[in-house]
Amino acid sequence: MPLLLNCDLGESFGSWTMGMDAAVMPHIDQANIACSFHAGDPLIMTRTLELAKEHGVRIGAHPAYPDLVGFGRRSMNCSADEIKAMIMYQTSALGGMAQSTGLSLEYVKPHGALYNDMMARESVRHAIMEAIASFHLPIRLMLQATPQAELHRQEAQERGIELYFEAFADRCYDDDGKLLSRTQPGAVHSKEKMLAQVKQLNEQGTITTVSGHTLPLVADTLCVHGDNMEGVQAIEAIRKLIQS
Amino acid sequence: MPLLLNCDLGESFGSWTMGMDAAVMPHIDQANIACSFHAGDPLIMTRTLELAKEHGVRIGAHPAYPDLVGFGRRSMNCSADEIKAMIMYQTSALGGMAQSTGLSLEYVKPHGALYNDMMARESVRHAIMEAIASFHLPIRLMLQATPQAELHRQEAQERGIELYFEAFADRCYDDDGKLLSRTQPGAVHSKEKMLAQVKQLNEQGTITTVSGHTLPLVADTLCVHGDNMEGVQAIEAIRKLIQS
Amino acid sequence: MPLLLNCDLGESFGSWTMGMDAAVMPHIDQANIACSFHAGDPLIMTRTLELAKEHGVRIGAHPAYPDLVGFGRRSMNCSADEIKAMIMYQTSALGGMAQSTGLSLEYVKPHGALYNDMMARESVRHAIMEAIASFHLPIRLMLQATPQAELHRQEAQERGIELYFEAFADRCYDDDGKLLSRTQPGAVHSKEKMLAQVKQLNEQGTITTVSGHTLPLVADTLCVHGDNMEGVQAIEAIRKLIQS
Amino acid sequence: MPLLLNCDLGESFGSWTMGMDAAVMPHIDQANIACSFHAGDPLIMTRTLELAKEHGVRIGAHPAYPDLVGFGRRSMNCSADEIKAMIMYQTSALGGMAQSTGLSLEYVKPHGALYNDMMARESVRHAIMEAIASFHLPIRLMLQATPQAELHRQEAQERGIELYFEAFADRCYDDDGKLLSRTQPGAVHSKEKMLAQVKQLNEQGTITTVSGHTLPLVADTLCVHGDNMEGVQAIEAIRKLIQS
Repeated sequence: MPLLLNCDLGESFGSWTMGMDAAVMPHIDQANIACSFHAGDPLIMTRTLELAKEHGVRIGAHPAYPDLVGFGRRSMNCSADEIKAMIMYQTSALGGMAQSTGLSLEYVKPHGALYNDMMARESVRHAIMEAIASFHLPIRLMLQATPQAELHRQEAQERGIELYFEAFADRCYDDDGKLLSRTQPGAVHSKEKMLAQVKQLNEQGTITTVSGHTLPLVADTLCVHGDNMEGVQAIEAIRKLIQS
Repeated sequence: MPLLLNCDLGESFGSWTMGMDAAVMPHIDQANIACSFHAGDPLIMTRTLELAKEHGVRIGAHPAYPDLVGFGRRSMNCSADEIKAMIMYQTSALGGMAQSTGLSLEYVKPHGALYNDMMARESVRHAIMEAIASFHLPIRLMLQATPQAELHRQEAQERGIELYFEAFADRCYDDDGKLLSRTQPGAVHSKEKMLAQVKQLNEQGTITTVSGHTLPLVADTLCVHGDNMEGVQAIEAIRKLIQS
Repeated sequence: MPLLLNCDLGESFGSWTMGMDAAVMPHIDQANIACSFHAGDPLIMTRTLELAKEHGVRIGAHPAYPDLVGFGRRSMNCSADEIKAMIMYQTSALGGMAQSTGLSLEYVKPHGALYNDMMARESVRHAIMEAIASFHLPIRLMLQATPQAELHRQEAQERGIELYFEAFADRCYDDDGKLLSRTQPGAVHSKEKMLAQVKQLNEQGTITTVSGHTLPLVADTLCVHGDNMEGVQAIEAIRKLIQS
Repeated sequence: MPLLLNCDLGESFGSWTMGMDAAVMPHIDQANIACSFHAGDPLIMTRTLELAKEHGVRIGAHPAYPDLVGFGRRSMNCSADEIKAMIMYQTSALGGMAQSTGLSLEYVKPHGALYNDMMARESVRHAIMEAIASFHLPIRLMLQATPQAELHRQEAQERGIELYFEAFADRCYDDDGKLLSRTQPGAVHSKEKMLAQVKQLNEQGTITTVSGHTLPLVADTLCVHGDNMEGVQAIEAIRKLIQS
């Protein structure tokens, strides 16, 4: 199976525009659509769903902590019940709007700080998994492909849900299979290195770490970014690489 | 068919409590559940749905203008597209949460200023009807029983949706079949008059207007209020009346 | 006195950018700074104040209805007390931040729908004037120069406040001295016509209406727009015209 | 100097009521007034200021993380610049409204999670102190009296601000002079023990810890709670004790 391409979309809000959604949508497989807690009001969600439908792109909910001004990037110390409820609310909102547009919600990918907290803290991850497990339709959880993948798969299995593992095209990995911190030199790849990483990941299922080691990394989907023209061009180049 | 009893519930928010939901739920047939735009955060929605399930109460979405501080009571000059999207978003959120709780969403009753605007302005009413018509499951719209009922039924029919007409237990009607403005003397009935109005409405399908005329009023459901102990007692008395 | 140039600024929000503030600030006299109800979070307000200070630009509060998703452009049916409190809150927030930056708040210019409601409805205008009158420092209210200017001046005088009257550079006026509705042809001037209008207004204190009549219009300040590069260039051209 | 009594007030929001403000205000010295980020909209702030003025109570701003649904009780991972800006915004808003009511803002007491983070993390505390230092009027910071008081005083002095140290009437202290966690038995005092603690603190400047040790605790003010009738009665009892 070739890698899928997933991208955060629908992150405009009211009169403010963010992201080149119309330019990105034709090139990706999966759209992670903001649900109004960090970005994406109901009207923008409507339009993003229509755009996804037009291009036959699968859709996922992209729920976040309730933090518009912080764009969902600030960790909030929420209880498990609060997390379950906020996931359920946002997923239901997007899911119902998707069904009413003739689409099926396929997965949930938490956004920003909620995503990071999910990867770092078991309690957050379990709350998210339980929300997804209790959703009235079968949907997957998308999380990061890491050396803990087996543990995550087991946690998911216990709750009766399936996972999508995602890798990052433009980020350098350390020897532990984690993303090199953005504060480190070389944390974000040049376009050339990015394409090499994508090719290696797609064809061999491995990555080359910061110190030159080869590490296996099993991923279903690749996270790409469409914030600006440069990002769109990178997506087009990756699309070409993976299709061929 | 005896009149159903509907009541606004789930109108607490975060640390703030409103309404005597636990005391009201056993006595009503239909719970209008706030969807987080005027009241009712995701956690409260979850709990309200569970309470409704426990008591076998049918549920409706109670969407509103996005106005927490004004409790959805201030009219906002929104476009038809904005209204459709906000109805769709809130209804989807509650609907998905309901299905995940094992319940089915039965109807939508707009809240506060959105309800008033729906009754007063065709454009708002049509936008709401179109949102409901495009929802992926068949749900009804609840609106006020007025002399315009036939027109409203026709508008609904053209869009393929069904209606619930509601009457008010404690409000005096004028000779045009409209609610007497709250600024008028006698606008809100005493408990005795309220019970008389309910009895007449349930048994004869008529009301006695402010000037003493008898007016036919075809209603499916009766709006009751559970804000305080007095309201709960009124609901109990109405329940007794209608069951017997 | 030459006309001053005023412009709405600080209308970004969180991660979303709007307006070319850095390019506009050097060319204007008065910055209308968003106060967080329709745009402009506390961090953006801080930076906008610093930018205004750097360029010696006078500052005004630009308060709005509490409607982020609608960018304050949707009229909300608020009570006089609510309007007074929201004006007072937003003005105080910006005013205190300004003083702490070494600046003095000079005026208040309501935003969007609140501005329109102020011009159209006496009750809104009086509530705004009373809020400004009760502010602990003397500040002015900026409103539109219209044939009702004398009435507005009198209303202000009764409440002990002063006014700034503003005219619009790029909008065509009708024979009643009101802005031609944007739905009408010719409502928004070409750059050439705009500059001619500015020149005439600045030198003769008159405008030429849509039907070719000459109308006196007494204005203190001219509203300009810095949303995009075209707007910035228009501001530069107007600046040149008025300085010369 | 006898201990002052401070209490969180103005924590209603829109249509939701919280706290018995009118019953509490006559008995306290300092009102910590919510600024609209965790509670307290502009209209409620206005009324709370008027109530404080009526009873000659000193006022402080009670700023919080922007988290209405969580009532400011959930820690948010904000940058120092974000914290400074949110403190400055909220303090300015209340401060300006206070001055316009004829009152002077005397201090700032952070709310909930922001208060806890201030006590636990130097970076948060310094950001708050710097915001207060840069405020255009001299105001104090209120924080918890702990064995680190000397360090806190020094940090404040370096930034040119003064402090209020507060103690808690109803909470048991551990041997390190910290509050015993609420998860521990005996964490919250009975009314009798509370009054004994207040008496000892006021007369001898010491507390008796959970294990029976006597610890000096230098406090300027005592935090009391007016959430319900029981709290109000406790405040009245404390007031009597301290006045005599």
